[in-house]
Amino acid sequence: MANYNSYRYFRVTFPVEYVAHVEINRPEKMNSFLTGRMFEELRHVFTQLSHDPAIRAVVLSGSGDRAFTAGLDVQEAAEMEGGLLSMSKPSTGTANYFPDAGRIAVHLRRYVDDFQNCISSIERCEKPVVAAMHGYALGLAIDLATAADVRVCTNSTQLAVKEVDIGMAADMGTLSRLPKVVNHAGWVKEVAMTGRTFGAREALRVGLVNYAYETKAAMVQAALSLASLLASKSPIAVQGIKEILNYSRDHPVQDGLRYTNIWNSSAVQATDLQVAVLSGLQKKSPTFEKL
Amino acid sequence: MANYNSYRYFRVTFPVEYVAHVEINRPEKMNSFLTGRMFEELRHVFTQLSHDPAIRAVVLSGSGDRAFTAGLDVQEAAEMEGGLLSMSKPSTGTANYFPDAGRIAVHLRRYVDDFQNCISSIERCEKPVVAAMHGYALGLAIDLATAADVRVCTNSTQLAVKEVDIGMAADMGTLSRLPKVVNHAGWVKEVAMTGRTFGAREALRVGLVNYAYETKAAMVQAALSLASLLASKSPIAVQGIKEILNYSRDHPVQDGLRYTNIWNSSAVQATDLQVAVLSGLQKKSPTFEKL
Amino acid sequence: MANYNSYRYFRVTFPVEYVAHVEINRPEKMNSFLTGRMFEELRHVFTQLSHDPAIRAVVLSGSGDRAFTAGLDVQEAAEMEGGLLSMSKPSTGTANYFPDAGRIAVHLRRYVDDFQNCISSIERCEKPVVAAMHGYALGLAIDLATAADVRVCTNSTQLAVKEVDIGMAADMGTLSRLPKVVNHAGWVKEVAMTGRTFGAREALRVGLVNYAYETKAAMVQAALSLASLLASKSPIAVQGIKEILNYSRDHPVQDGLRYTNIWNSSAVQATDLQVAVLSGLQKKSPTFEKL
Amino acid sequence: MANYNSYRYFRVTFPVEYVAHVEINRPEKMNSFLTGRMFEELRHVFTQLSHDPAIRAVVLSGSGDRAFTAGLDVQEAAEMEGGLLSMSKPSTGTANYFPDAGRIAVHLRRYVDDFQNCISSIERCEKPVVAAMHGYALGLAIDLATAADVRVCTNSTQLAVKEVDIGMAADMGTLSRLPKVVNHAGWVKEVAMTGRTFGAREALRVGLVNYAYETKAAMVQAALSLASLLASKSPIAVQGIKEILNYSRDHPVQDGLRYTNIWNSSAVQATDLQVAVLSGLQKKSPTFEKL
Amino acid sequence: MANYNSYRYFRVTFPVEYVAHVEINRPEKMNSFLTGRMFEELRHVFTQLSHDPAIRAVVLSGSGDRAFTAGLDVQEAAEMEGGLLSMSKPSTGTANYFPDAGRIAVHLRRYVDDFQNCISSIERCEKPVVAAMHGYALGLAIDLATAADVRVCTNSTQLAVKEVDIGMAADMGTLSRLPKVVNHAGWVKEVAMTGRTFGAREALRVGLVNYAYETKAAMVQAALSLASLLASKSPIAVQGIKEILNYSRDHPVQDGLRYTNIWNSSAVQATDLQVAVLSGLQKKSPTFEKL
Amino acid sequence: MANYNSYRYFRVTFPVEYVAHVEINRPEKMNSFLTGRMFEELRHVFTQLSHDPAIRAVVLSGSGDRAFTAGLDVQEAAEMEGGLLSMSKPSTGTANYFPDAGRIAVHLRRYVDDFQNCISSIERCEKPVVAAMHGYALGLAIDLATAADVRVCTNSTQLAVKEVDIGMAADMGTLSRLPKVVNHAGWVKEVAMTGRTFGAREALRVGLVNYAYETKAAMVQAALSLASLLASKSPIAVQGIKEILNYSRDHPVQDGLRYTNIWNSSAVQATDLQVAVLSGLQKKSPTFEKL
Repeated sequence: MANYNSYRYFRVTFPVEYVAHVEINRPEKMNSFLTGRMFEELRHVFTQLSHDPAIRAVVLSGSGDRAFTAGLDVQEAAEMEGGLLSMSKPSTGTANYFPDAGRIAVHLRRYVDDFQNCISSIERCEKPVVAAMHGYALGLAIDLATAADVRVCTNSTQLAVKEVDIGMAADMGTLSRLPKVVNHAGWVKEVAMTGRTFGAREALRVGLVNYAYETKAAMVQAALSLASLLASKSPIAVQGIKEILNYSRDHPVQDGLRYTNIWNSSAVQATDLQVAVLSGLQKKSPTFEKL
Repeated sequence: MANYNSYRYFRVTFPVEYVAHVEINRPEKMNSFLTGRMFEELRHVFTQLSHDPAIRAVVLSGSGDRAFTAGLDVQEAAEMEGGLLSMSKPSTGTANYFPDAGRIAVHLRRYVDDFQNCISSIERCEKPVVAAMHGYALGLAIDLATAADVRVCTNSTQLAVKEVDIGMAADMGTLSRLPKVVNHAGWVKEVAMTGRTFGAREALRVGLVNYAYETKAAMVQAALSLASLLASKSPIAVQGIKEILNYSRDHPVQDGLRYTNIWNSSAVQATDLQVAVLSGLQKKSPTFEKL
Repeated sequence: MANYNSYRYFRVTFPVEYVAHVEINRPEKMNSFLTGRMFEELRHVFTQLSHDPAIRAVVLSGSGDRAFTAGLDVQEAAEMEGGLLSMSKPSTGTANYFPDAGRIAVHLRRYVDDFQNCISSIERCEKPVVAAMHGYALGLAIDLATAADVRVCTNSTQLAVKEVDIGMAADMGTLSRLPKVVNHAGWVKEVAMTGRTFGAREALRVGLVNYAYETKAAMVQAALSLASLLASKSPIAVQGIKEILNYSRDHPVQDGLRYTNIWNSSAVQATDLQVAVLSGLQKKSPTFEKL
Repeated sequence: MANYNSYRYFRVTFPVEYVAHVEINRPEKMNSFLTGRMFEELRHVFTQLSHDPAIRAVVLSGSGDRAFTAGLDVQEAAEMEGGLLSMSKPSTGTANYFPDAGRIAVHLRRYVDDFQNCISSIERCEKPVVAAMHGYALGLAIDLATAADVRVCTNSTQLAVKEVDIGMAADMGTLSRLPKVVNHAGWVKEVAMTGRTFGAREALRVGLVNYAYETKAAMVQAALSLASLLASKSPIAVQGIKEILNYSRDHPVQDGLRYTNIWNSSAVQATDLQVAVLSGLQKKSPTFEKL
Repeated sequence: MANYNSYRYFRVTFPVEYVAHVEINRPEKMNSFLTGRMFEELRHVFTQLSHDPAIRAVVLSGSGDRAFTAGLDVQEAAEMEGGLLSMSKPSTGTANYFPDAGRIAVHLRRYVDDFQNCISSIERCEKPVVAAMHGYALGLAIDLATAADVRVCTNSTQLAVKEVDIGMAADMGTLSRLPKVVNHAGWVKEVAMTGRTFGAREALRVGLVNYAYETKAAMVQAALSLASLLASKSPIAVQGIKEILNYSRDHPVQDGLRYTNIWNSSAVQATDLQVAVLSGLQKKSPTFEKL
Repeated sequence: MANYNSYRYFRVTFPVEYVAHVEINRPEKMNSFLTGRMFEELRHVFTQLSHDPAIRAVVLSGSGDRAFTAGLDVQEAAEMEGGLLSMSKPSTGTANYFPDAGRIAVHLRRYVDDFQNCISSIERCEKPVVAAMHGYALGLAIDLATAADVRVCTNSTQLAVKEVDIGMAADMGTLSRLPKVVNHAGWVKEVAMTGRTFGAREALRVGLVNYAYETKAAMVQAALSLASLLASKSPIAVQGIKEILNYSRDHPVQDGLRYTNIWNSSAVQATDLQVAVLSGLQKKSPTFEKL
């Protein structure tokens, strides 16, 4: 597996014990995403963190002053040979590659399936992920943030489900995850269909973010504190909670109960239970085995 | 298909380009619904709008000053031969038609199945629907509104899931859709079981409506403006968003991602993507093909 | 079936016609739950109330001044031979009972499956249940409350999904039900993973409780009033609403519509419909048959 | 509702009490289906039969000597303006109607959705349907037959899931229903992907048909006898069995049990139960009320 | 828990180590089932066997020469006050208990829900159950047998889904489980709707039974041999297989894979894996710990 | 992507146009699977074939005379440090790596999740896969074969769901896929719980294989012929059929119909439809564009 220094578009640091800080690192372009390699790197980073026993919680934020991420780098996507825009061009340009609309569809599905899978690596990451959004948080920003576990922002963050304004339905997860994160169905339909920008106050009200802070620095500090708190808890418990909550979101209550029970039937055999209970009785901080 | 002027209980006008305004038009009875033909007409209107390329967004409101709709016309339903009330009468009256409770049940199921299907035509309508509620919005009003995409009201709107007060569980969709619209499970249970009236402030707080306005006129104007904004966006994108959000509500996230991808594999081949991106670069309003 | 006086850990009284008041009755230990018999009794109480025609609504609260319930009696659970804590002990202690981790898992699953089933008796109870929480409402308190239909508390109630602090994921239902009760996914993850205490204001904001009251006495009085109101409604309607809303939570909208229709095809044949409509026309209180 | 004589493409007769015989009636074209009106008629016929109290069972067969149905009338479909084939033509021809691949997809979905709905009217028909197939039973024949409840054929019937040979996946239900009818997953994949013809012996072996007969006349006679037997049973029971089996196919066993119970809670209140039991004790034929 | 000798309607013996033989023991009435206590006993027997570490496999058969079971004792059910038949009587008889069809439905649902739960105890039993059917195996016989894991019969067994002949849809599980056991959808519909008797040859062909034997004695001997073979295998493995196969029947493949993995993550930590592998290498019979 | 020659454990050849032949290539060990790299290679091979436009169908067989595959190389798995067997050892050996049963479970889940994913690459491969099994086909062989689309074998193939004999439930997919391939639930339970060997005749009877052949050479030849036939069909159609059938297996019929429709709305816009129809009319072989 790659060393954490080898990533080009993500900076991974370890400011607190057991906590990783992942920064989207393309500030000169407002952290907009390049298709291809940048998505791949995202998946590598979160897959690596998922199994790294030295990590128990992750913060995801954007580098620079201006944006968490302004979304997909549309200019690059437009120029890319065989890319999204060329798909809908009249036949002249694409005929070389794809003879018909049916084959274009197959190509697009393979391509988007892979991108979706990269974004979902945040959800699959066994450790909890806190998304900390400042400045612009547009389009892909919502796909990324809703794949995380907890979201925070600054008072001045500008958010939008922007894809409608390039003539398409958001395709990287927002439409599947946002309604299960905030559950104000009318609000989701409005912001997804109008593409209008909304701010921290509205994000707080509908439950898209848990907290809003005055500055980016304060937000990152708070996110790291929350991650640090999560990292001080039993990793067996915290990772089990993430898994069970994600499973329960997608299944009936009875299925959720059964899954919880089967998951826990090995988890409670970890030493964490005893360590936690004894530490509680002795009023001291517990020390848990790696995971 | 019927001309839009041929409806008796619904007035359909076109106040803005690409926007239809559907008014429930029985103000002398507070827009209460007659069983049979009035439900049928509702289905016809929304089925027609769904496939009409001149329409991209719909506003549904009630005519007159007093009510969005006061619900089912219980008096008419009670008098109707073979109607709901006669079902629970002691055997004398119904014996002519139905010899036993099992056969009455079959008759009721066929009958309600058809009414549910009429209400669901709002959800099936491929174009987004904004429900604008003023005055009384009782019983059936909630069935209709929760089948729409976005809801607004006036500050003085009086809402209630009223069916409990006629001794039955709401049977036209409220109990299936309301908890997926607002998702404050305890509040839903309370208002559904008590039948108590609640106002705009409460509707706003739980997320049943997106906005509340001072007057009916202001509300209708705002609803038409929102519809007009939706109509200015790519119809391929807006209709795709409606479909995908409704699908995602009913399926696990993984299924939602896959459905999004397959849906989009043809949708992004529409000219809308290029039109939207080019218009964006040129800072002018896009013009989309009909749909 | 046992007489209501025979319970040791629950006090069951009938302060209002058709209303049962169930009090968790171990105030000397902050109503903490003993494994085994106390869970069994809970199931007996709610199974009995479910089918008792003299009961139409239930209030569940905690006796004494200090707590709704402080959760599982961890001390007792820890000491119990073959109990939860002994499961994770190194082999010496448990070797007598369980030769390996696989068999411990089987034992745990049987044990927790039974406890989950006891808690779910509140959800299975055909009559609506109002959980009224004062003082400490920790751990198991949330499992119990989310299995109820409506939740209220006092301004000073202290709530927490506490299990993470004993090194485990909550296993009695909170992780499956809480996200379907409040649906602020980020908040659920935060409180479940940190175990932090939150108060009435926060519980109100996310929709965990419907109302908060100044004192325990005021809260219990209000809960009984709500139960009394529910008990004045048609029991056929109220019990149908509970069943249909619980079913709809776990199924797609189309399945919900169909289930509603089939359920109602016998329910509307009850006399309640006529009784309710006639009473409405005559402006007098309806009297419904027992159920 | 239309009189049974008014259909152009279907002959509906009543050879036995309570039994309808529906014949696909376009023998000069091997009963191949015209798009549009012929599908519509199919839906009308089965919707009418579904609610007609004089009907308790239905046989569906093909008129003439040569075919149950040879499938879609591809020639007509190909020639039809705006039809299936024109969709995949290079831009010149279709540009008048559809400017892009995304809009063609929308058009196709509306069109196929309606055809699927017509076929599904056989499944939705509340009375059991026996499909009796002779001669050629190709393409659409399998869509129709798998939407029925029981299938029979002659020894010389030639069957095929033919759509692969016109370059498409069967789109009218075969791919969703065939694997739930026969459940030999490997065989389904083989015949669906190769389009190869198979005969009665193979159809019997995999369970696609219940019986095979020497001649068309013998087959129709046997199908009518089976329908007649079904019609002699309690219609409340038979129709309940169809509904519950179709529901159970699509849901977990626990959901199936619950649905059965709720369905039956009104059904067993029909007089059929007493009539059947008494007739059984008295060893005479029961006479059931209409349904 | 009751001693195995205390049952009145079931004889439980232990002919082979780790194997229980449960005989339905009312041969004078062809092992027909009495409502109430006999269903309760069935649940007790299988719940007890499920957790008894001395048992690893179960055979269920009928005592006497004539029947596995002839189904529900209809005569007793008919005479029972408040029983099934009285439900559909005209108002005179039942008016004392139930004033309307809606309340009768509630009563029936509670009653059947409990009976279904008794039958499902066979499926919930953690140990594999072999149903061995001789003579008449009618109605309830199929509910019981399809809740078991493997079915065998004699060459002369007469089977039928008989409920249609008393005017009702089978309500104890056959309609939910039979199509998932044999999966010849057309055959299931035919036998469920006609109630016709079928024999061993047909049961073998559609997969309802695994084997048929010449005599009852040979069948019971073979069933005990199969149970004995199952009991010689790792109980951790065998019970895990039962659980995972039942879960997989009701869920998508991806959910099945995940459930398998989580289940096994504790199961493979049992000593059974080592014991089995070592015994295999040493070519001797393994001895597994109790479960 | 790797060149097809670079694989160590799989030989990939192209005996017929558009057809790949993948041979498990460890004949000296009866093609048993090494954990780790061999699973990884399998995933690489099928992922590469899935998107390779020169491939339209795949045959998977085993090299050498003795076995398709004898399953997992248990000896290697047993010796591997941190491997499956060490998991269930008493604490001494594993203590270095894993301090408790809970952490062992986490490790196992990650490990098996990855192996399951490798096997599922056969199902995810967009091109149809024919598994051709000769000699021993044990354990993992069934996991592999049930992830394929069509299965064939020789008359002397010996098959078994062998995992029960090493004390565990099969964990690589057999228990989730086998019951959806053959659907003789009793037979699946028997062979999975006893681990007994069965032959070609039985595999044919229950539908596990489509055909059995006299020799390995004849079988491979026939499998290649079938693959060649599939490769001659429209790749748009064949790949759509695979996708839709796999989706339909896991969803209700209504969901399947909708998915089919949306999938096809782009697929039928491929040139394949016209090419196929025209070739049909002209009675010549169609030539389809690559995919």
